[in-house]
Amino acid sequence: MKQIQGGITAAKGFQAAGVEAAIKYRNRKDMALIYSEVPCVAAGTFTTNVVKAAPVLWDQRIVKESPYVQAVVVNSGIANACTGKEGLDCCAAESRCAGEQLGIPETSILVASTGVIGMQIPVDRITEGIRKLAAAKSDTPEAGTDAAKAIMTTDTVEKQIAVTFEIDGKTVTLGGMCKGSGMIHPNMCTMLGFLTTDVKISGRMLQKALSADVVDSFNMISVDGDTSTNDTLLILANGLAGNEEIVSEGKNYDAFCEALRFVTTYLARKMAGDGEGATALFETKVIGAASKEDARTLAKSVICSSLTKAAIFGHDANWGRILCALGYSGVPFEPENVDLWFQSVSGRIHIYGNGVACDYSEEEATKILSDSEVTVLVDMHMGEQEATAWGCDLSYDYVKINADYRS
Amino acid sequence: MKQIQGGITAAKGFQAAGVEAAIKYRNRKDMALIYSEVPCVAAGTFTTNVVKAAPVLWDQRIVKESPYVQAVVVNSGIANACTGKEGLDCCAAESRCAGEQLGIPETSILVASTGVIGMQIPVDRITEGIRKLAAAKSDTPEAGTDAAKAIMTTDTVEKQIAVTFEIDGKTVTLGGMCKGSGMIHPNMCTMLGFLTTDVKISGRMLQKALSADVVDSFNMISVDGDTSTNDTLLILANGLAGNEEIVSEGKNYDAFCEALRFVTTYLARKMAGDGEGATALFETKVIGAASKEDARTLAKSVICSSLTKAAIFGHDANWGRILCALGYSGVPFEPENVDLWFQSVSGRIHIYGNGVACDYSEEEATKILSDSEVTVLVDMHMGEQEATAWGCDLSYDYVKINADYRS
Repeated sequence: MKQIQGGITAAKGFQAAGVEAAIKYRNRKDMALIYSEVPCVAAGTFTTNVVKAAPVLWDQRIVKESPYVQAVVVNSGIANACTGKEGLDCCAAESRCAGEQLGIPETSILVASTGVIGMQIPVDRITEGIRKLAAAKSDTPEAGTDAAKAIMTTDTVEKQIAVTFEIDGKTVTLGGMCKGSGMIHPNMCTMLGFLTTDVKISGRMLQKALSADVVDSFNMISVDGDTSTNDTLLILANGLAGNEEIVSEGKNYDAFCEALRFVTTYLARKMAGDGEGATALFETKVIGAASKEDARTLAKSVICSSLTKAAIFGHDANWGRILCALGYSGVPFEPENVDLWFQSVSGRIHIYGNGVACDYSEEEATKILSDSEVTVLVDMHMGEQEATAWGCDLSYDYVKINADYRS
Repeated sequence: MKQIQGGITAAKGFQAAGVEAAIKYRNRKDMALIYSEVPCVAAGTFTTNVVKAAPVLWDQRIVKESPYVQAVVVNSGIANACTGKEGLDCCAAESRCAGEQLGIPETSILVASTGVIGMQIPVDRITEGIRKLAAAKSDTPEAGTDAAKAIMTTDTVEKQIAVTFEIDGKTVTLGGMCKGSGMIHPNMCTMLGFLTTDVKISGRMLQKALSADVVDSFNMISVDGDTSTNDTLLILANGLAGNEEIVSEGKNYDAFCEALRFVTTYLARKMAGDGEGATALFETKVIGAASKEDARTLAKSVICSSLTKAAIFGHDANWGRILCALGYSGVPFEPENVDLWFQSVSGRIHIYGNGVACDYSEEEATKILSDSEVTVLVDMHMGEQEATAWGCDLSYDYVKINADYRS
């Protein structure tokens, strides 16, 4: 497997575009298109929030019922959530317009939205945007970047990646993009993430790979503990790599899953590190847990702790808060048996063991905690299972961004 | 029932003190004593965190095994959590010293600590503090206030209350104090809370009343979602009111529970409203829920949402975040059937119904959200059950306080 330049246009036969449609923002790209020159199998995972945005309800039906998918239309600015029948009518209008403009069936079109909850999307603007997208679409890396920028809300950078790997001697490409960066506590999926690949794979195996993957990638990140109404992760596979179709488990499926994990972990980490107001990526790795589920629960409890996140922002080695967060996670353990370390590119220090603080240097701890990626390593000494979760620090800017997000 | 001046010294036979012991803080009171002139029955509820501070482990045993309790020694500054055997030895030294100084058995003494996790308490200072407390103790309201001030950490005001009510024609008094104000997400109990009463009641009925009460009082508040290692709520009842002993359910028990609920709700609200960095008390009342447990879960999910808390800080009527938080609470419901209102002393507005935003005035919403106590009223239209939860807004100061709490 090899990382290459580009994102969602890297795989054969995929085009993209990003344009200004003034849905809510002014003077920036706010609509994106992903288009495949040939029909794709598609898979998706969606928010588990009871309150599901209209595009989530729409896409769940398309992914389940449509014979194939060929395009995705995305807008930022307005989430089309809590918008009742008018919101679903907007999805229908988008599909109809995109079908006409792209010359493909409207049942082959997925839609996604992100932004403010409760506002209605101006349908005339979104259909005008779709016309622009259809005209602008291209298979260049720049077109992929335009799309990655257009889906941003409070993100500070676009997030995209592409890799190639081999199946049956054929080069397969997988690319993706996603956006954060608040209301991030994915459950079954992330905010908005889009993956494109030219692998040939059955829809059933594609969904299986995606559903298995998110458990340890996007579901292991949190910015603020709020599970969005719009969480959507979609993958389109158009088969143009020419490999023998993957229809069951085996080494080809494994190779695809490995590439998928690499791409989703990269995007998930980027999303966590670019969380609203974040100054650092905060990673917690739990090893020696009794079960995989315990490891995930413990790791996620630490990266979700507001107090720990504030301490990371302050470069303060307040490890008691980490032990506290492990303690209220719901996983039973003996505090005396746990070991804690802080680590970063600057080094690694043992901070807690045998039930008490280790004799570490506060100066060294502060140095480690001042890096842009900080890891807490936790050894539970209860078994062989491990998991990693990613979050960010809690800063003044998180409050600033969210105290008046709508204006 | 009547609210009166005072706190933990209001009930007959109770004395208190607050002194400077320089446990960690300088130039402020940091140790408190509660003392009853006669033996008391005691009940307690404690943190469910797997990581329990030494005083929690100590008190759980005393409450369960000791025939009676007569004093409580509390310090702020250091939590005596994650302190291993040395931490438990400190509890033993405190009990021994307090027993000698007060002339009561060391098994009749409870201890509690709050502050930084992981540091050891200097035993010489805490025993010196106990000597000062024993000399200073008094039954005046001022002594109660001294104690309430001494247990504060990041609290901005002391929190105390007292009420009187009648049982068998006898006047019974119940007083209490508590402290917050970070790492507040009590589970089975709050941070530190102390109640004193002269009611005559069996230990079994006292524990029953306390355990039933916290479910809808202290367990319904949250400042930051972090369940502390030190959560402790203790109640001492010395029987000096002279009522016939309450040994079973009935109207006398109900009268006591009603007073208890009044006092604990008052203290819980105070704690939420004085959460770290808070500028407003944020209350969520859920009505029309299918079950009591659903109502509690829904209400708590809203007051715990970082995004909603930040919006309250910004006086921004971002009701979508409230619906989102209800949606990920785990309780199933149809979003179209929910009604939401904002209310405060300034008025009440309907903001969401029939699946979409109501036609409300943003100006009026901002006015309501600018008050120091803001309520979200949620009608689920699914049944008759209701619950209320209390939190606070998320401000810059929460981050400031917690980015470098230890220094």
